[in-house]
Amino acid sequence: MQANAIGVISMFYARPFGTMQLAMLPRMKAAGMDFVELLVPEPGELDLDATRGTLAAAGLSVVLAARVNLQRDLASEDDAAHRAGVAYLKTCVEVARALGASIVGGPLYGAPLVFAGRAPAPVDEARRARRVARVVAGLREAAAFAAGNGVVLGLEPLNRFETDVANTTRHGLALVEEVGSPALGVMLDTFHMNMEDADIPAAIRMAGARLVHFQANENHRGFVGTGHLDWTAIARAIADAGYRGPVTLEPFRRDDERPGVPLAQWRAPARDEDAELRTSAAFLRAALETAWRGR
Amino acid sequence: MQANAIGVISMFYARPFGTMQLAMLPRMKAAGMDFVELLVPEPGELDLDATRGTLAAAGLSVVLAARVNLQRDLASEDDAAHRAGVAYLKTCVEVARALGASIVGGPLYGAPLVFAGRAPAPVDEARRARRVARVVAGLREAAAFAAGNGVVLGLEPLNRFETDVANTTRHGLALVEEVGSPALGVMLDTFHMNMEDADIPAAIRMAGARLVHFQANENHRGFVGTGHLDWTAIARAIADAGYRGPVTLEPFRRDDERPGVPLAQWRAPARDEDAELRTSAAFLRAALETAWRGR
Repeated sequence: MQANAIGVISMFYARPFGTMQLAMLPRMKAAGMDFVELLVPEPGELDLDATRGTLAAAGLSVVLAARVNLQRDLASEDDAAHRAGVAYLKTCVEVARALGASIVGGPLYGAPLVFAGRAPAPVDEARRARRVARVVAGLREAAAFAAGNGVVLGLEPLNRFETDVANTTRHGLALVEEVGSPALGVMLDTFHMNMEDADIPAAIRMAGARLVHFQANENHRGFVGTGHLDWTAIARAIADAGYRGPVTLEPFRRDDERPGVPLAQWRAPARDEDAELRTSAAFLRAALETAWRGR
Repeated sequence: MQANAIGVISMFYARPFGTMQLAMLPRMKAAGMDFVELLVPEPGELDLDATRGTLAAAGLSVVLAARVNLQRDLASEDDAAHRAGVAYLKTCVEVARALGASIVGGPLYGAPLVFAGRAPAPVDEARRARRVARVVAGLREAAAFAAGNGVVLGLEPLNRFETDVANTTRHGLALVEEVGSPALGVMLDTFHMNMEDADIPAAIRMAGARLVHFQANENHRGFVGTGHLDWTAIARAIADAGYRGPVTLEPFRRDDERPGVPLAQWRAPARDEDAELRTSAAFLRAALETAWRGR
């Protein structure tokens, strides 16, 4: 029985996470983490050799989170943005190789926050199919490059407010199956699933062997165990799906009882939250071990 | 034992909902609804006398949903937008009187979708306090007007992606308590609570006597009973809170398995969904009756 590795997203500690922040890696290890999930650094943000060395010294492995925007966007009908999206995913694969990571996850298809200022309108089926085809073509090229480098890409559905390309697990699987590459799977995040999937454990089981990365977040993005998600059922579904890969914690809600504080936006920690991180990792680790043992 | 009235939002059928759509009201009654929740009509959108007559003929009562925007926004630091926000709430009260409604709910504080294109930044405490003070002042004036007209206003917290003024039940209650008017309470929507509150039943109980309106929506905004919310526990909390007011269904997800369809945006029904509406109303009504009987 080998339960899943548990890690934390670098944003829990700092954003941006640059070379100056590498000193935080031993703190993550001390809080019970097996790995860190790093946002793929922008050029110059992080010294890759120093990062690899500090990770090794801290005893942490690493997973990468890709960052898309409207300028690098597979779904875009603008050729330059589409091509920049493909080029970015290839860069992500190169950074993964440089850091010794084998997984790059995220909303790889692009189209983040595309709703800003757009009025509701009927779905234009031709345009929808065209955007999906561009996503699939871009992912095919990126996945071929990833396969050649021993890296696996994880396509993450996001909730309806963050993208219009893939919201449900089924949407994500549809894209992954259309691409049809062993170097592309789906990654699932319970924060988004809580908003879009009818049955989180059933969706995890449905993903099955296509599942290549997992983010365990509470319904309100606080610490695992402080909200209403059913972690026992989620852990059982992970074991049933046969998923032995990494599980990342991203508890950066930063509770605030004052009206007028934008919970949607990332905020820096106001105090040392390592004790809560350690407890939620222990809680999730025990739930996963129990689930694996029960198989 | 008198359980809660159950109704449906007009958007389930059509948007905009104008005089031409009044013929749909008997259909709502036939689907088991006790009332309709109408979006407060914009000038000229709906003949109020005809609406009142058609409602009476159909045997439906009515609740109103206020619509804010950046031009009528209590939270705005622009005086014209703030004043227009207050004037709009008074108009809502007048429309309520004209239609025979006693409740106007919604994100009365304004500031919808304020995140568009805004980069994360530390919270400016002075600005936060100023915006909250403007919201409180505007609500005081509107609530006084509502009180004089026998109407109650319901302040609805929205999820983090839709506003930054009030996301949690606690945020909503803080504003309501600061205003301190018997004509202002909180309205709760389980779709938003599912994303922001740690414990939905506990939040409903906490709202208690301040609760003046309720929207029962699944985690993914599909029909009640098709998602993962615990309706037995929610119904018990409603009874424990002593809330005997209306409960509105807003199941306008319109499931779509195609990637690239924007679930965040309202879409017209693609087929007759009255049977599902009827079943989910019966399900919720039975859960509420069971909860009330158990007290």
